[in-house]
Order: sequence, then structure tokens, then C-alpha cells
Amino acid sequence: MSQESADLVTTQYMTLFEPPNELDLDCGRRLGPIQVAYETYGRLSEKKDNVVWICHALSGDAHVAGKYDEGDTGTGWWDIMVGPGKPIDTHTYFVVCSNILGGCKGTTGPSSTNPATGRPWGLEFPVVTISDMVRVQKALLDHLGLDQILVVIGGSMGGMQVLEWAIRYPDVVVSALPIATTARLSAQGIAFNAVGRNAILADPDFQNERPTAPHGLAIARMVGHITYLSERSMHEKFGRTLRNGEKYRYDFNSEFSVETYLDHKGQSFVERFDAFSYLYISKAMDYFDPADRFGSLEAAFAQVKSRFMITSFTSDWLFTPQQSQQLLRALLVNGKDVTYCNIESPYGHDAFLLEPEVLGSLLTGFLASNLRKLRQGKTVLPIAENNQKNGSANHHVGRFDYPMIERLVEPNSRILDLGCGDGRLLQLLSQDRNVQSCGVEISQSRILETVGRGLTVIQHDMDAGLPEFPDDSFDYVILSQTLLEVHNPELVLREMLRIGHHAIISFPNFAHWRARWQLAVQGRAPVTGHLPCAWYQTERIRFLSLHDFEEFCDVLGVRMIVRRFLGAEGREIKHLANWRAEQAIYVISRGNGA
Amino acid sequence: MSQESADLVTTQYMTLFEPPNELDLDCGRRLGPIQVAYETYGRLSEKKDNVVWICHALSGDAHVAGKYDEGDTGTGWWDIMVGPGKPIDTHTYFVVCSNILGGCKGTTGPSSTNPATGRPWGLEFPVVTISDMVRVQKALLDHLGLDQILVVIGGSMGGMQVLEWAIRYPDVVVSALPIATTARLSAQGIAFNAVGRNAILADPDFQNERPTAPHGLAIARMVGHITYLSERSMHEKFGRTLRNGEKYRYDFNSEFSVETYLDHKGQSFVERFDAFSYLYISKAMDYFDPADRFGSLEAAFAQVKSRFMITSFTSDWLFTPQQSQQLLRALLVNGKDVTYCNIESPYGHDAFLLEPEVLGSLLTGFLASNLRKLRQGKTVLPIAENNQKNGSANHHVGRFDYPMIERLVEPNSRILDLGCGDGRLLQLLSQDRNVQSCGVEISQSRILETVGRGLTVIQHDMDAGLPEFPDDSFDYVILSQTLLEVHNPELVLREMLRIGHHAIISFPNFAHWRARWQLAVQGRAPVTGHLPCAWYQTERIRFLSLHDFEEFCDVLGVRMIVRRFLGAEGREIKHLANWRAEQAIYVISRGNGA
Repeated sequence: MSQESADLVTTQYMTLFEPPNELDLDCGRRLGPIQVAYETYGRLSEKKDNVVWICHALSGDAHVAGKYDEGDTGTGWWDIMVGPGKPIDTHTYFVVCSNILGGCKGTTGPSSTNPATGRPWGLEFPVVTISDMVRVQKALLDHLGLDQILVVIGGSMGGMQVLEWAIRYPDVVVSALPIATTARLSAQGIAFNAVGRNAILADPDFQNERPTAPHGLAIARMVGHITYLSERSMHEKFGRTLRNGEKYRYDFNSEFSVETYLDHKGQSFVERFDAFSYLYISKAMDYFDPADRFGSLEAAFAQVKSRFMITSFTSDWLFTPQQSQQLLRALLVNGKDVTYCNIESPYGHDAFLLEPEVLGSLLTGFLASNLRKLRQGKTVLPIAENNQKNGSANHHVGRFDYPMIERLVEPNSRILDLGCGDGRLLQLLSQDRNVQSCGVEISQSRILETVGRGLTVIQHDMDAGLPEFPDDSFDYVILSQTLLEVHNPELVLREMLRIGHHAIISFPNFAHWRARWQLAVQGRAPVTGHLPCAWYQTERIRFLSLHDFEEFCDVLGVRMIVRRFLGAEGREIKHLANWRAEQAIYVISRGNGA
Repeated sequence: MSQESADLVTTQYMTLFEPPNELDLDCGRRLGPIQVAYETYGRLSEKKDNVVWICHALSGDAHVAGKYDEGDTGTGWWDIMVGPGKPIDTHTYFVVCSNILGGCKGTTGPSSTNPATGRPWGLEFPVVTISDMVRVQKALLDHLGLDQILVVIGGSMGGMQVLEWAIRYPDVVVSALPIATTARLSAQGIAFNAVGRNAILADPDFQNERPTAPHGLAIARMVGHITYLSERSMHEKFGRTLRNGEKYRYDFNSEFSVETYLDHKGQSFVERFDAFSYLYISKAMDYFDPADRFGSLEAAFAQVKSRFMITSFTSDWLFTPQQSQQLLRALLVNGKDVTYCNIESPYGHDAFLLEPEVLGSLLTGFLASNLRKLRQGKTVLPIAENNQKNGSANHHVGRFDYPMIERLVEPNSRILDLGCGDGRLLQLLSQDRNVQSCGVEISQSRILETVGRGLTVIQHDMDAGLPEFPDDSFDYVILSQTLLEVHNPELVLREMLRIGHHAIISFPNFAHWRARWQLAVQGRAPVTGHLPCAWYQTERIRFLSLHDFEEFCDVLGVRMIVRRFLGAEGREIKHLANWRAEQAIYVISRGNGA
């Protein structure tokens, strides 16, 4: 990855909602004029199809990347992600980011001058919402002469804006990438915000017209910083180290390194942010709740048209993976195209600012596939390009079941592949059968590969069931060579039959004559080419023969549609299959009774 | 469980450390006289062997249970646990609890009068430590004429005192029960305390001699309350409910129910507690770190003689299960007798005040077994009593391997039983072979049964390995009928051979003729009396025959010491075992090469 930064940037300003065209706020009041500070990076394409719209979080601003002048020691807040050769590559994309309404970094907020009084608004400023913020951004988009966003991206409170964009402007947002966010704060999230607001409001220096509450704002920021880190990363960073020396001082000055760190974070925040904006922005986060507005989250997402990629971080306890999974479920219930990855990270909520590798790889693949969709009509990378790109041959030389599965699938159908691995089968089916596909996979590295192919994939453990997927939402649900690793096969097979019109299942045959010989004559648990692991190895947790599977189908009342059996080198076996077949492929569907 | 409360109680007071015999504090200063407030419940036995010593947490006091007079609307802070017929049964035990040094509930603290000035100490009060607190409690014990504590119990900061008691007074403390605690706060714990102290110290009302900081103390308590609850329990309790009506008010008053709750908690705390004590007590928690004092936690525990029971709560994110598991490991490394249970609870840290059932059942069993040890010399309940008590027959009629295992074990040896279930085998071995035993089990309900038998048991998933157990710490490590459920058998077997001189393993034989017949002739994965589950059921995840096991022992370079094979009804099989045996029992040990 290149370490080159974006070119020098300047913050630009635009004034919108000039009276009498003020913005109608959710609170019922009207606001205007509104000044918006924004920055752009890269070049707009002729077709204006390469717009990446970034939404910043609580304490962010329009300065995403690069420097203002050569002498700058710092860069924008997401410089690791945005720039030439970076995941959001400014050679390819035209990036826009604006400071939010209510902020204190150039866009109108409570510290701006109230035109009616000529003094700062202070607490007279109207309470604004995430939706108000996004409507201001939409006005900016219009004034920039843009009518389509390739992808709108944001983390934390930025992710709330992403959701609002997708819900409010379905025809504008081609794809949406909410990172480490939620459709609504939990009681705990509101509670932490309330503590911060209480500390500010209780600060004796806090007065209506002077945006200063040095103690209160510092305490709010300290609480925030604790919630942005994971317990583990905080402990690894500071442990119980003392600031000075090795002995306790037995007084009430800050003594542990973590205390000094929080003091510093609090203090530097007071220098660069204002207490009024903190109050207003934290309130906007508390209020955000599209599920409440629409009756349910499912209803809120009913009209969205964007492709989604949702990411969370395993150690984020402020905007938890469970909250991202609620977004996922509500989109799936609506049959929307959504990719999900719960990125393994020790860094807590701050990971979205600190984890460029995995998140960057996901962004790269997702952005590229959406641009491909706009320019070539297809999200999925052609196989030839893929091989060229990776410099690798087909990974699945040994997967004799793939060509057979391909022959069993109708063109243009909808496919769900459980345990999709690196996405090779789905890529084949997309190219040769033009299917609409979705994968389910548990391994992060395989998800990265699958996303790299331009495919849609959901990180999920299918042993927990697949309740997110509606009945009959796919034509085929595939379980290829994964049945032996499933912990709860009955649940998984029932789910496959519920979700798909057909289920396609392939597995190695335990009653192949070699296996029988080993148990019957040698008295050993079989080990063969298709059952390669010894009994004590963890990968091998289950055996079944063709008879076992068919008997089980009888128990479930399943209708058997196709049976195909393969011997060595993928030769098809027609007779004495339970003796001779090394692999079996079944197509089944719900029985009449089901 | 009876709902009867303790008799009416009165707080008693004792003055200790009168000059010139002041207490030498850890900070280097001397303090005296020290008044101690305490309460007692139940009656001291003639042999003074029934003392239960309770240590309270940050905001607690000496008033553990019962009422001061009939008109009291409230009861003591742990009334659910302490009283006639309750887990800490005041019919049986003599319970003592005192307010801590530095507190504000009757024991000398920063709001007490400084005898040198005649005014409250304020910040002139010396910084005290957990160790100082416990030394004051020990002086109280001495003055009460007691020289032995049956069990010292406490949760949260009370648990820190429990650890200090066991480390500092090994000959006094028969058993120790630290609940939801830690041997040291993590950086995150210190950070939350620091926020609270900052809020108090920044409060304009906070003055040296007036123990009042209404805003600051309230904010400290709000932060505390967030950390005492789990995200889930907070959400279930409050969700996003608004206090008044259904519409947002668009102002900065407390609006969500969770905000009102925190306001109330903060306010009521300000009325009953003082800001100085909060500063001092939170600082004492930050400083507690026996590992630092002794060089390591292992060294800190090297001299303890108490039996331990450690409990944590699955959803506690302030004093995490991982922190309790660090205590467990440090005790096991020292070969100490320690039981551990990570209680399944949604309530977070506060669960120790809210979860009477499981914690109560563990306390009851542990207390009874320690009293049994003092009075009858044995912790384990005799089997006859057990059956009488439960009104149940032997649960293990079908476990033919138990008598055989019993014959294979030398009397008076040390036994570790992996997957000990309800503890029946260990109880048998304790009674008939007089072994010292410890169980490892994953299921909470089975742990409760095992503890009820007076046994020592550790909640742990053996598939994660057993690194806590030192090499050669047991004579026998047993794995009875559990091998087929183990996900990582190689790891578990290697660990057994490392930890024990001998490993005893029993399992069903997959190469029994019935199983062979089913695969070879019927072409089906076998289902027999000893392999009762069908291929798709989750309990059955592995197969092996006697040959497979012995071959595996060869691979590991294991020495085979005894092989016993059982047929139907537990008949011993001598010939053609791999065809005829339904079950096998092996005793193995490390080979010469190991």
C-alpha cells in the first residue's frame, strides 16, 4: 500500500438554505442560512459515477485526508484509508466529506452567530437530528451538481448518517457502507452520553453564550475515550504503569499512566472542540432511531435500493457486533443485497480508525464491485481477471462436485451457498449461469477473498440457524462438502429447505468399500482420500453414508429430486453407489407434507 | 427458602488502635484511635468454629441483613443471602460484618473528626489501602475473642478484602469466597474510578472541610451504575423508553428513562454517602495489587491455607470472569484447593447482589463442607446422606465403568476427573478410596450438584487445554465416557499425561461387532446401545475403536499400563476385545521418551 498522501487540500464553504428557503428541522423550527464546510479529494469522472461520500463521527470534521500545506505535521482523520493507492483510492474515486450540522468545524452550529441577535446561538440553537444533518448534506450534493453517490461511508455516528442516506435517498445511494454503527443507541449508549452532558451542564464555567466548560467537556471526553477502547487494548496500552517512578504516592493527583492519558485526551479535546457542539451532537445520536420512525427497522429498510456492506469489530462494546447484526437481519428480511463482516480486532470501537488492513481490503473489493456494476453491469469479477490478478490457478482442482453442481443449477436463479469458502463456486455460477448469489461463511480470510471477487457474503455461523433469511428467498441453497463439519446438521438442513426451493448437498460417502473394509476387517475408524483425517483430529466430527442421508431425508419428509454419485476423478457412478461412490450430490426439496 | 429475616439488629461500635498503639498504615502514616462499626447475626458456637466474616463493597456498610426496628421499610444490603434458612443460615453460622476504614458509616474515615484539630479530616485524612482495612478487621476479630474464621466472603471490593485476609492471615481463614472480584483493577477499572474522582474534585462545592460535591459525586455514581449493569440488563430494564409521553422534547433535560434512573441514583447516593469517602475508597481499590507486592500473584498465594471458592458472573464487564480466572490459575499453580464457577447471569457486576439462587446454592454447599471438615475431618458428604438428602437413587446405574475405575485407583491418591458430571465418581472414590479429588466440568447445573456433595470442582472447557494445572500435580487424571464429546482429543490426552502420573480413559468401542455389521453389511453409520445417537445428532461427534486408541497411544509414545474391556452388563471381556467389547478402560502414562 502506498504511503503517498492526498494532494494538498483546502476546506471549501457553501451557504445553503438562505431565507426564505430555511431548512425545516425535525424539532419543528426552521434554520437558515446554513454554512457548510466541506473538502473533496480526487477527480470527478465524466459520468459522475465515482462519488464516495464520507460521513464523519462525533468529533470529526471535513478534513478526512491529506494536509492543508506542506508544513502540516498532521493529516486528516482517515488518512490511512483515503488517498492515492489507499483503499479509497483518490486516483479512482472522487471523495467528498462535509462537517455536520451542529458541529464546530466550519458548518453552522451552536457556536455560530445567531443572525437574529448577532451573538453566538448557545443553547438557543435548535436541537438537530441525524436526519437534519443528512438533509443538509443532500443539499450540498445537489449544489455540487451530483445526482448519484457510488458509496456513502461512515463509522460510528457517521454510520448513522449512512443509514439515513440509504433510507431517505434510495435512488441516489448506489451502495452504503456503515461501519461499527447502530440503528439506535442502547440504554447504555444513551447513559454514557447523558453522563457527558451532565458533566458539561454542571460545569460552573458553562454559560449560555460562552462555549466553554473545561472540566465538564474534559470529563465527557474521558468517559468517551474509555468506551472507544476495549478493556484489553486499554490494558495492553497502559496496564497499571505509574507515571512517575514505581511507588504509590498516596495522594489524589493522577498517578497511573491511564489517568494521565485521560487527562491529556480531555485537555486536548477542550482545546479543539466546543461544549455546545458536544451537547447537540450527542443528543442527535440519542435521538436517532429509524425503527421508531417507521414502526420497525424492517419497515425503515423496505424501500432502500443500495447494496450494503456492514462491518463491526469483535471487541467493540460501544457499537456492538450484535447491533450491526440487527441491521443485517432487517436488510435480509427485506431481501436486500448485504455483505457483513465482524472484523477480528482487539482495538474496540476505535478500530475503525486503526484497522486499515482488513477494513481496507473489504472497502477496496466492495467499491470496485459497485463501480463495475455501474460501468459493466455486473458486480462479480470475471474469473479470467481474478486469476490474472491473483496470479494463481484454480484453487479447487480437487473439487469434482463443482461442475456437477453447475449442471444442476438453472440459469438466472438465486443462489445461497452455505460455507461458501473463498467464493469460487459462486463466482463460477455467476459467470456461467448468471445467478444472483449470496454466500455464508465463518472465516474472515475467506470472506476477504469472496468480497475481492465482487461477491456478496455474510459472516455467520450456520450452526446457529439462519433465521435472518426469509422463507423461499432463494431458488437453491447449496451445502458443498461442509456437512461433515456442521455441528447441528438437522437444523441446517431444515433451514436450507425453508429458505430455498431446492437444497443441493454434497458430501463424501462413509460407506464406500474402502471405509467398510477398514472398520469390518481392520477394526479401525476409516481414513481414506475423501475422509482424510484420523479420529482424533478436530476437523473430522461426523460420518454418514448415502443410506444414512437418504434415511434422514425420509425422517424429515423430504422430496428427493436428483441423486448423483461420483467415484475417483469425478467419474459418475450409476450402480451400487453406497459401495462405490466416494462422493454424493443430492438435490432435495420440501415434501408434500411440509 | 425461608423469607424470614434476621432478628432485629443493632450496629455496635468498638474503638481500636488507641494511642500510643496507632495503626501503621501502608502510606507510612499512623492512625488512631479508630472507631469500628460492626454488626453480628446468629450465635457463636461453643467451639467458635462457625464464624462467617463478610466484607462489604464500595458503597456498603456493616448492616448486612435484617432490620434495626420493626418499622424499618428496608433491610440490610445482603438480606437475600443472610438470615434464618437463607444460604448463609444464621441458625448455623455466626456472621460478622464491619464498616471499612475510610468509610462513612460509623468506622473512622475522612469525614470523622481529626482529634488534632477538632474538625473533620477531609483531604488531611491519610490515604488507606485494602490491607489497612483488613488489618483493622483483624484487630476487631481479636477483640471479639475469635481466632478462626470458617469463611470470609465478599463481592467486588469486598472480594479484594477476602484475598487480603487469605494472604495475610493464612492460619485464621479456613476458607475464602471472593465473589466477582479481581487481584487488581485493569486500566479500564482505574480509568472509570479516575473519572469519578475528577468529577468530584472539579465540583465547585467540593471544599476540604465540607464533604459535599453534589454534582461531582452524582456523576461518579452515574458512571459507577453504568458499569455495574450489563449492556443487556440495562437495555431490558430501560430500553429507549421516554420518561414522559412518546415524543422527543428537543431540549437538554433528562428525557430517556435511563437518564432519569441515573439522575435518581446519583441524587440518592449524594444523600447517603460522602464525597471524601468515595475518593479514598476508590483510591484503595486502584492501589490493591498483591501481585505487585509479592512479585507475582503466584507468589502472593504461595502461603495461603484456605480452601477457595471463586465465583464470577458471565455478563460482568467491570470485574470480568477473566480476572477471576487469573485468581484461579495462580491458586492452581500453587496446588491449592479451589472451586470455580462462572455463574450464568445477565445482570452484570450487580449480579452478586441480585442472583441468590445459583450463588446461594454454591455458598450453602461450600459453607457446609467446610464446617464438616472442621467437625468431622472430611469435606465430602457421605453417599448415604447424599441419597437420603436428595431422596434419589444412584443416578449411574448404567455406568459399568465406575467399579472398574475404583479398583484401578490406589487409596489416598490425588485424582483429577475431567468432565466429572455431577461428581458421583469422585464422591465414590473419596468415600471408598479416601482420595483427594478435584473435578473439571463445563455445566453449571452439574457443578452445583458436585459442590453440594462437598467436592472441589472447577468450571472449565477442557478443549481449551488445562494449562492451569502444573505437571505431575495428580496421581490419576480420569476421562470417563467423555472422549467422544471432546473436540480436541489429542490436546486433552497430552494434558492428562502431563498433569497426572497416570491417565484413566474409558470409552465405547466403535469396532464392536454390531457396529461393524451395520457399516459393512447395511452400509450405515452405526447406532448401538453404547453409541446411541444417529449421525445427525449433536452429541455424537467422534468414533474410535480399541485399535484406533492404541494406535494413537503409539503415536504419542504412551506407555500402556492396564487395559480392561467390558461387555454387556459390565462383564469383563478377555479375548477378541476389539470385536466383543462394548466399553474399554485404559490406564496409561508417559512413555520413557516423554
